[in-house]
Amino acid sequence: MKTTIPAATISRLPVYLRCLDDLPRSVATCSSDQLAAIAGVNSAQVRKDLSYLGSYGVRGVGYHVGDLSSQIKKALGLTRGYRVVIIGAGNLGSALAGYGGFEAWGFEVAGLVDIDPAKVGTVLNGAAVEHLDDLERICRERAVAIGIIATPAGAAQEVADRLVEAGVSAILNFAPAVLNARPGVDVRRVDLSTELQILTFHLQNR
Amino acid sequence: MKTTIPAATISRLPVYLRCLDDLPRSVATCSSDQLAAIAGVNSAQVRKDLSYLGSYGVRGVGYHVGDLSSQIKKALGLTRGYRVVIIGAGNLGSALAGYGGFEAWGFEVAGLVDIDPAKVGTVLNGAAVEHLDDLERICRERAVAIGIIATPAGAAQEVADRLVEAGVSAILNFAPAVLNARPGVDVRRVDLSTELQILTFHLQNR
Repeated sequence: MKTTIPAATISRLPVYLRCLDDLPRSVATCSSDQLAAIAGVNSAQVRKDLSYLGSYGVRGVGYHVGDLSSQIKKALGLTRGYRVVIIGAGNLGSALAGYGGFEAWGFEVAGLVDIDPAKVGTVLNGAAVEHLDDLERICRERAVAIGIIATPAGAAQEVADRLVEAGVSAILNFAPAVLNARPGVDVRRVDLSTELQILTFHLQNR
Repeated sequence: MKTTIPAATISRLPVYLRCLDDLPRSVATCSSDQLAAIAGVNSAQVRKDLSYLGSYGVRGVGYHVGDLSSQIKKALGLTRGYRVVIIGAGNLGSALAGYGGFEAWGFEVAGLVDIDPAKVGTVLNGAAVEHLDDLERICRERAVAIGIIATPAGAAQEVADRLVEAGVSAILNFAPAVLNARPGVDVRRVDLSTELQILTFHLQNR
């Protein structure tokens, strides 16, 4: 089935899933109100979002936690694992390489690459640093699905192009740069320093 | 001066700043085209954004890198340091506590708190874990400016309320929950797992 779930709904599904995952095991059902409070929408929106998955709650009872969790995982493609490669072994890249959360969510760090000769060949937070020259080989041989860019901003576009060339069509970009990607390639951006600096702007101008 | 810089401009200033910071020291000037390419806007937008800071490039020369960097830092409130407290010492919270990037950007981790008795009193990635009960005291005594929430989704709103009560009016939320904050409190959200899961959704439905 080719899905036509709206982008806003897609972006809320992980939030609902985490909400369900955070419930104690003894809790069997969950109301749309509970999910709505966490996701910052109203309960009608929750019911609409979940109806795209064919999930309908029972009036006065709500959703069965286990079933709904399975349906969201299936919709999000989380019933399988994904290999990721991290490009850039600086503070952020090496922290990500050692970050236990990836494994918990079903993501395996299959490689960490950098161009710095002082880093290549060393092990950072449990990940062996390989050379950027090997990026294409690593992606192909290890069936990497997702590229995580943690390079300086100026290098991000070139790295993204190389990832796409090597068959990686999903990119999580931590570099503070906006990437151009061809159709069929998905890029999501996470920018810690930008978010912090937007906060300091407001602190300063209060 | 009370500023009236548009939100979209504010969110691009950190990007311009990182672009300037990434330039070799030997480079004295930077064109609006260069900044535009990194920020994903056109050069007219860059010039407009920077004009809000009173910064005008010289035709055919561009912007003086050092001057522009100083002006953006001043606008973003980055001429001083900020103390942050991290709430939640799980995988993410403890990774953030040890993340070298904060220091590089002028942020000092002044505290890491959790409710888990097995964690309180231990040292994780160089940060001593204190009890959540001490959050208000920590914020007040150490003049914390920014709270970083790395708790499960269900605990995030309560923690945010307590931060605000303790005088912290800037919050960076890593929990996959949408927080309600009273006027005058700024909340920014960074959600690694949501971004990854949006990517897997598209991988699955391609």
